[in-house]
Amino acid sequence: MDSNSVGIVAPQVAVFKTPLTLASGATLGGYELVYETYGKLNGDTSNAILVCHALSGHHHAAGYHSAEDRKPGWWDACIGPGKPLDTEKFFIVSLNNLGGCHGSTGPTSPREGTSHPWGPDFPQPSVEDWGDAQARLADRLGIDCWAAVVGGSLGGMQAMTWSVRYPDRVRHCIVIAAAMKLSAQNIAFNEVARRAIYSDPAYADGHYISSGEAPNKGLALARMVGHITYLSDDAMASKFGRELQETLELGSEHIIGDDSPEFQVESYLRYQGAQFARGFDANSYLLMTRALDHYDFAASYEDDPVAAFRQAKAEFLVIAFSTDWRFSPARSREIVEALLAAERPVSYAEVEAKEGHDAFLLPIPRYMDLLHAYLKRVGP
Amino acid sequence: MDSNSVGIVAPQVAVFKTPLTLASGATLGGYELVYETYGKLNGDTSNAILVCHALSGHHHAAGYHSAEDRKPGWWDACIGPGKPLDTEKFFIVSLNNLGGCHGSTGPTSPREGTSHPWGPDFPQPSVEDWGDAQARLADRLGIDCWAAVVGGSLGGMQAMTWSVRYPDRVRHCIVIAAAMKLSAQNIAFNEVARRAIYSDPAYADGHYISSGEAPNKGLALARMVGHITYLSDDAMASKFGRELQETLELGSEHIIGDDSPEFQVESYLRYQGAQFARGFDANSYLLMTRALDHYDFAASYEDDPVAAFRQAKAEFLVIAFSTDWRFSPARSREIVEALLAAERPVSYAEVEAKEGHDAFLLPIPRYMDLLHAYLKRVGP
Repeated sequence: MDSNSVGIVAPQVAVFKTPLTLASGATLGGYELVYETYGKLNGDTSNAILVCHALSGHHHAAGYHSAEDRKPGWWDACIGPGKPLDTEKFFIVSLNNLGGCHGSTGPTSPREGTSHPWGPDFPQPSVEDWGDAQARLADRLGIDCWAAVVGGSLGGMQAMTWSVRYPDRVRHCIVIAAAMKLSAQNIAFNEVARRAIYSDPAYADGHYISSGEAPNKGLALARMVGHITYLSDDAMASKFGRELQETLELGSEHIIGDDSPEFQVESYLRYQGAQFARGFDANSYLLMTRALDHYDFAASYEDDPVAAFRQAKAEFLVIAFSTDWRFSPARSREIVEALLAAERPVSYAEVEAKEGHDAFLLPIPRYMDLLHAYLKRVGP
Repeated sequence: MDSNSVGIVAPQVAVFKTPLTLASGATLGGYELVYETYGKLNGDTSNAILVCHALSGHHHAAGYHSAEDRKPGWWDACIGPGKPLDTEKFFIVSLNNLGGCHGSTGPTSPREGTSHPWGPDFPQPSVEDWGDAQARLADRLGIDCWAAVVGGSLGGMQAMTWSVRYPDRVRHCIVIAAAMKLSAQNIAFNEVARRAIYSDPAYADGHYISSGEAPNKGLALARMVGHITYLSDDAMASKFGRELQETLELGSEHIIGDDSPEFQVESYLRYQGAQFARGFDANSYLLMTRALDHYDFAASYEDDPVAAFRQAKAEFLVIAFSTDWRFSPARSREIVEALLAAERPVSYAEVEAKEGHDAFLLPIPRYMDLLHAYLKRVGP
């Protein structure tokens, strides 16, 4: 464990007994949110930063769960003493969103008043609903106003939503590799991912928990599609080229029915897909992709993002990555243009990075420097 | 039927009894190729053009199979009297490749010496093998030298291969929306497509024909992945935007286990996928994607495409489309640069088109004009 790690952290659970009505009209009688915090909340509660996770993320953003734990939280590069989200200065809150599968109430939780899981019947939350649930967590923690709300990808959408839904509760809004709404191509990729899950007979219309067999093949396939789109063509080329597996050249024994991988990129994707499926719930994945597809930042403002951003009182930092083709710099520039038209203070940076959309998770020096420099301005 | 249609055409079958040894080392004792011809072969057989099909194409490139037939061949926009591949002047040959599922010998054909289909055991052909099989068809038709070999995508790879494998038999080589080899990203998308088929329990290790149930869900999913990548983001945006289906707004009845499509692009992809699965054999699809993934134009020339193209005697036309991200203009420029370095005559055009990779199948005026103008120079 390096000296700039937050060290060993323990997830906490906040139990909410007040019903929450979702944008869909459905009401949850109560719910739990699992979260972690890093650093110390100061006396006037002015140093708190909310980190919002992306599609497959969760509350464990930094540090380790035990001394034996080999893998730190998903944004450990960014959170810790001396890091951009500096725990010497800030109190960082990271939670698992409603509908997730890492401890917060979601499809794997018992349905209200029963002992069996919600499964596919868990009410579909929206990004706005997540904001509302997070606001209650802020209340619980005594945080009136976040020094910053930060997120990448779907997390960036949550940050934007906070800025207009709770304008008095956000001083800085950091939106990384996001978009105001998805393109048809993005929705199409998510649709293929969902189809892959539905097409797995083990999905059983979503009631697979009782059967004991999860739709892992479908979920792995869904993740493979996603994974390709998170990487750039260049990143894949430099990582894999088109090398055949050493043991499997096209030869006389080659049989088309044999599904052994031939290319390194194939083994990599299969491994990643299978790993992911072991740790994620298929109904949660469906729910998260739907929240993403339905997100439409300006929908409540007659599709006018300028009118929407006029509600905001925060200062903004918008970051995009040059080879991100899933949430391209052009989509970030749309956000920046709307902010400028709404006369909101905004800094924009397009970071050269060959890693595609995945770059937002990686410790790319210029990206880290940018975040660091910006957050130095964010006083407690 | 318009006046510039080739009218009603009848597929023909060429039966080859001489064994064909494939690049894999496997030997086919004999095989059949189904093909169509449009126009008339002239006395000195100098006006013949070979059209090579792409991943999911076949021999039926132009005209209709009956008076009731509503849909013409896949390249009807390009082939006919007065069209770029002018049947008043040229004799056009279009075949279904070995391993296909539209009449040529392939996985659905009876295995040699048996009455049951090859299925997954059909020997994997390479692009070079297709060239060899096509060369025998040329022999059969009395064509010593093609006026031109033409193809888009995987068809363009066949055209390039002809130019160096049979340099004395090709006068002009027209390579559209192709590449000298696939990128890791391209292979990754094909791998997801194959996984989708393997993951369908109906695939049954490829022996589904005897079971009576084809892996249509898996094949439809495979096609959906492909389909997204053949369209540009812009084309999808202008075709679908992100319109919800009218009847299915996110509302209180919305249940995440419900797999009804919500976005227009979802219905479109599902329809296209299901349609495709009804008309295509899954083992053929696997075989075609593998031929594509393994294609490596310069592999036999120590990975030096310049050395490879030095074998060619043809003149070249290379065409790419501005929004094609699956076989981008950059990949076509690599072909052009290798040709220039090899001192081969080459014309290159990058056509502005919003349709992505699919553009090569469409009657885009500048594209049609370019082909027309080039082919006017190709004398019989």
